[in-house]
Amino acid sequence: MASVKDLFQSADWTKEKHVPVIEILEKDKEKGVRVRVSVGKEIPHPNTTAHHIVWIEVYFQPEGDKYPYHVGRFEFVAHGATVQGPDTSTVYSEPVVEFVFKTQKDGVIFATSYCNIHGLWENSTELKL
Amino acid sequence: MASVKDLFQSADWTKEKHVPVIEILEKDKEKGVRVRVSVGKEIPHPNTTAHHIVWIEVYFQPEGDKYPYHVGRFEFVAHGATVQGPDTSTVYSEPVVEFVFKTQKDGVIFATSYCNIHGLWENSTELKL
Amino acid sequence: MASVKDLFQSADWTKEKHVPVIEILEKDKEKGVRVRVSVGKEIPHPNTTAHHIVWIEVYFQPEGDKYPYHVGRFEFVAHGATVQGPDTSTVYSEPVVEFVFKTQKDGVIFATSYCNIHGLWENSTELKL
Amino acid sequence: MASVKDLFQSADWTKEKHVPVIEILEKDKEKGVRVRVSVGKEIPHPNTTAHHIVWIEVYFQPEGDKYPYHVGRFEFVAHGATVQGPDTSTVYSEPVVEFVFKTQKDGVIFATSYCNIHGLWENSTELKL
Ligand SMILES: [Fe+3]
Ligand SMILES: [Fe+3]
Ligand SMILES: [Fe+3]
Ligand SMILES: [Fe+3]
Repeated sequence: MASVKDLFQSADWTKEKHVPVIEILEKDKEKGVRVRVSVGKEIPHPNTTAHHIVWIEVYFQPEGDKYPYHVGRFEFVAHGATVQGPDTSTVYSEPVVEFVFKTQKDGVIFATSYCNIHGLWENSTELKL
Repeated sequence: MASVKDLFQSADWTKEKHVPVIEILEKDKEKGVRVRVSVGKEIPHPNTTAHHIVWIEVYFQPEGDKYPYHVGRFEFVAHGATVQGPDTSTVYSEPVVEFVFKTQKDGVIFATSYCNIHGLWENSTELKL
Repeated sequence: MASVKDLFQSADWTKEKHVPVIEILEKDKEKGVRVRVSVGKEIPHPNTTAHHIVWIEVYFQPEGDKYPYHVGRFEFVAHGATVQGPDTSTVYSEPVVEFVFKTQKDGVIFATSYCNIHGLWENSTELKL
Repeated sequence: MASVKDLFQSADWTKEKHVPVIEILEKDKEKGVRVRVSVGKEIPHPNTTAHHIVWIEVYFQPEGDKYPYHVGRFEFVAHGATVQGPDTSTVYSEPVVEFVFKTQKDGVIFATSYCNIHGLWENSTELKL
């Protein structure tokens, strides 16, 4: 059987503009873990009606737990189109998001992203509270 | 690096209730490909405030194309909760969806699904027009 | 304060191609309510990289309940783009979906939809079990 | 016809915990508009398996444009459930998000949010670049 696993691409984000970059901005058992995920941090990704990042998703696998949890889904919907045609609105959603989740456990944060023409990409990072 | 690939589980859907089942209901180059994806076709999955299928996603990899396309995302949001507590509304979104996409190419249809406590699952099937 | 209420447009779906059409295909207290929601049933809406229906959402307000429930969100993600440019993939997600929800109560089904250049649209229909 | 407009509730966010609060953190025609939207800024909203904020959405209506643009959708998916039961994972997605969008035009930013038991809420704020 063909597997969705084979669709996820990974690479060095300093060289490949599609890879989601995960930055843990704060970590605290009370206030939560504040995270930024972005695509194109080093090499900006195009943002046009014809070519753009559609969404970023985040999962968390706590150490010792059997299953991962879906933490967030972030959709970047505006990409310049109007009734006058592609790239005429000046309005573009950028592929960067900051969010907060709580956990009392260490684990691994996974991010995935989707470019409408270059497919699925992934990254991950360890969280130590 | 830990990979999101390791989070996707697969199994025989006649025995494991989480596996998304892909049924191609019609296929036509003009009218499109009509598909049903469901979770729990043989063994129903619970649908309660505490345990339910959150979403199903569908991707299509055309034969000979380099990248897959995200075809659809289907979210099942209602799971019985009201101000009176869990499982009091009688309103539940069921994990089954029918949708249509057009393609002039053969390829592979992938479905993924997410249970809020049993994580990520996948399946795939070939499309021959 | 400007209100999001002012953003929702409605019209006669037999004359205006953006209005979501709600069809109750089956209704049963045991098996659930099977519903089709589509955009462009009478007058097809364009489906191109530059102009397309992005999503359909469904809400249900049971009679006598204080708050509505979000039943489903359905995203149509593929709109023809590839690395060769807009409208080169032959792969297009069509704005039609069939889904099932359970309820023991009568009420009103609401559908909303979003065109990437013509904004937000709405419709509703009564459900009598 | 019943209208989805009647489902959106608004109130003073300093007194009503469901109202999305919109904060414009930076505004620049080159770098974009950085925005935080949160629910429960003054009075925290519960975050449990049975009662939580499911998503926040953002729209932008540029001055002089006919239609609004959907800027972002942000889903908070983790709410404590595991195979051991509700509120056992310690993992919770918080209802706060920061994101960036570009625009060369002034206009109005709209935010909507959804509580799984208290329904739909809205707020808006003017953007002057
Ligand atoms: Fe790309
Ligand atoms: Fe399950
Ligand atoms: Fe349109
Ligand atoms: Fe609430």
